[in-house]
Amino acid sequence: MNEEAALRAHLAAVRPADREAMARAQARQAQLAKPPGSLGELEQIGIRLAGITGKTNNHIDRTRIYVLAADNGVCAEGVSSAPQSVTLAQSVNLTRGLTGAGVLAKHFGDELTVVDMGIAAEYDCPAIVNRRIAYGTKNLAKEPAMTRGQAIKAILTGIDLAGQAKKDGVSCLGVGEMGIGNTTTSASVLAVLTGKTALDVTGRGGGIEDAAFARKKEIIDGAIARLSPDPADPVDVLSKVGGFDLCAMTGVFLGAAEYRIPVVIDGFISAVAALCAVRLCENAKMAMFPSHDSYERGYRVAVEALGVRPWLNLGMRLGEGSGCPLAFRVIEAACAVMNEMATFCEASIDDGYLAPIRKNDSFTVRE
Amino acid sequence: MNEEAALRAHLAAVRPADREAMARAQARQAQLAKPPGSLGELEQIGIRLAGITGKTNNHIDRTRIYVLAADNGVCAEGVSSAPQSVTLAQSVNLTRGLTGAGVLAKHFGDELTVVDMGIAAEYDCPAIVNRRIAYGTKNLAKEPAMTRGQAIKAILTGIDLAGQAKKDGVSCLGVGEMGIGNTTTSASVLAVLTGKTALDVTGRGGGIEDAAFARKKEIIDGAIARLSPDPADPVDVLSKVGGFDLCAMTGVFLGAAEYRIPVVIDGFISAVAALCAVRLCENAKMAMFPSHDSYERGYRVAVEALGVRPWLNLGMRLGEGSGCPLAFRVIEAACAVMNEMATFCEASIDDGYLAPIRKNDSFTVRE
Repeated sequence: MNEEAALRAHLAAVRPADREAMARAQARQAQLAKPPGSLGELEQIGIRLAGITGKTNNHIDRTRIYVLAADNGVCAEGVSSAPQSVTLAQSVNLTRGLTGAGVLAKHFGDELTVVDMGIAAEYDCPAIVNRRIAYGTKNLAKEPAMTRGQAIKAILTGIDLAGQAKKDGVSCLGVGEMGIGNTTTSASVLAVLTGKTALDVTGRGGGIEDAAFARKKEIIDGAIARLSPDPADPVDVLSKVGGFDLCAMTGVFLGAAEYRIPVVIDGFISAVAALCAVRLCENAKMAMFPSHDSYERGYRVAVEALGVRPWLNLGMRLGEGSGCPLAFRVIEAACAVMNEMATFCEASIDDGYLAPIRKNDSFTVRE
Repeated sequence: MNEEAALRAHLAAVRPADREAMARAQARQAQLAKPPGSLGELEQIGIRLAGITGKTNNHIDRTRIYVLAADNGVCAEGVSSAPQSVTLAQSVNLTRGLTGAGVLAKHFGDELTVVDMGIAAEYDCPAIVNRRIAYGTKNLAKEPAMTRGQAIKAILTGIDLAGQAKKDGVSCLGVGEMGIGNTTTSASVLAVLTGKTALDVTGRGGGIEDAAFARKKEIIDGAIARLSPDPADPVDVLSKVGGFDLCAMTGVFLGAAEYRIPVVIDGFISAVAALCAVRLCENAKMAMFPSHDSYERGYRVAVEALGVRPWLNLGMRLGEGSGCPLAFRVIEAACAVMNEMATFCEASIDDGYLAPIRKNDSFTVRE
């Protein structure tokens, strides 16, 4: 199969972190005028960026959030608090900077690109990029959500989007989503990949009531039992119980790693896609950064499986890529530390701790 | 005593949060097109800002970090990893944007004002604001760090700095410090205010070795036993085992509350000053926001006593106000949500969840 081979080629093209560049960045961190380790993650982020780009000094000049939008057939089962039409409506609103993530991206000057991977509607909104695989997935409560070919095509689309970002000179990517029903698909995929049950990984998404919540868990465990996705084959898992959004997000993570662009994980759904990417290609993890600690159950399971620790503790669970703008600022801060702080070498005080005092100042320590 | 009366007048002038404005802000949050509560702290911050300013819509246009710098007599006991001269050197470097906090403030366009509250040196650096109380405090291992009059004068100075920020149109303040030896004074003050021992609240500051660390704890417990600061009288505590930086920081927190300016707590030392302010005046808490979870031991004790939960989990412990720039961005994000998100009222979809679809788009939901 042609596309199967194309995906394999992309996975093989993801090289590990550049250890030499990381060693150079680590050496510079050790020279900066501060108690060793006192800037914590801001130091580590700077070192990891070097591992991705191969450069000690990096700059976050152009940021882009890809919001992958798609509908999910499982919505027919009543697993969501909002009707399916909201996927399209919020996708449009995202392009206008009116939703949570749209507002934050606009405020901080981040690009936000909504990509239709499978919205179940005809519409006319030129700001949305059309890469539709189909008008929504099938209902995973009854049959596989999509074919294997569709899953691979959606993943390749995500990789292609990362390639486009590279061409456009994007220095940092974020991965968000919009798709009513996608906490159900994400919980299903996560349960299979981690060997857990729906109970461990399922939350209330947009805010469903008790009866719908119980039904959601039944549907997830039922679908997994019936369709038997192979945990060792993430494409099989995504195609049987995932969604077009999850597939494309997985692809953006893979593409970001291949094209050496740092990429931010948003909330629960984004973290599940990141885990799919890592299961497809261990090297992909090198390009990933966390953002906020999502309140949605299952997020913790996903980030623990990924081995990342979120930076922002704000009780958010909106999705849409809403955690990316603040995470971009954290990465910017790390770049500023690496690029702008004074080093011990520049220090004029011979205790080895401190930094440049210029000649036109007079310092006479009293005593 | 005249200054004692002046402080009492300021404390009495701090009014509680504006509950009516908070109710209006809460009502607006409930109308924004998102699952209720899905933006977590970003919603709560917006509501709290209304309680401070009395306005539903707030803007973080001008931000300022006050870095209160002072030397501590206790340095003579060898409780620090860096020599006392570093206080002055880093204060100068801060004004040049070369230290951690200086670099971050410069990157994000935040003002950073270094105020000399008691650096133990003569120097000529016009960028540092001179409000010196004395050339460093006395050694608390041997005698009270300062007189009660000095403590009150330093607190009033901090209140005055907040007043200056108000006159300058500053919309958000941050409180940082620079003072070798000030994790020792802060741990001492915190131990007294919370009834804990040095063991519970003392960390390694800039990175002292085991012997100095043991000595630091002995000094703290010894000073408290010898000087018997009164836990019910924060001015007594600050004067006996505190520092000029801590006093002035306490004053900035009090002044921010009086002049209705939101104010960000930085790390451990800043959190201890915030606690002093709240113990002097319960209403002062209304204006305070956390920033990062400091790695320095004692920080957790301080924020638990304050009842705040840090937003950023970055393993930082540099101080200098280095946590403020990223916290300002979180507050900015909260303002953007409150000011820019679409409300349900603006929604064109009758399911009550969603937001404006304009007339020039055609939406035909496909089954």
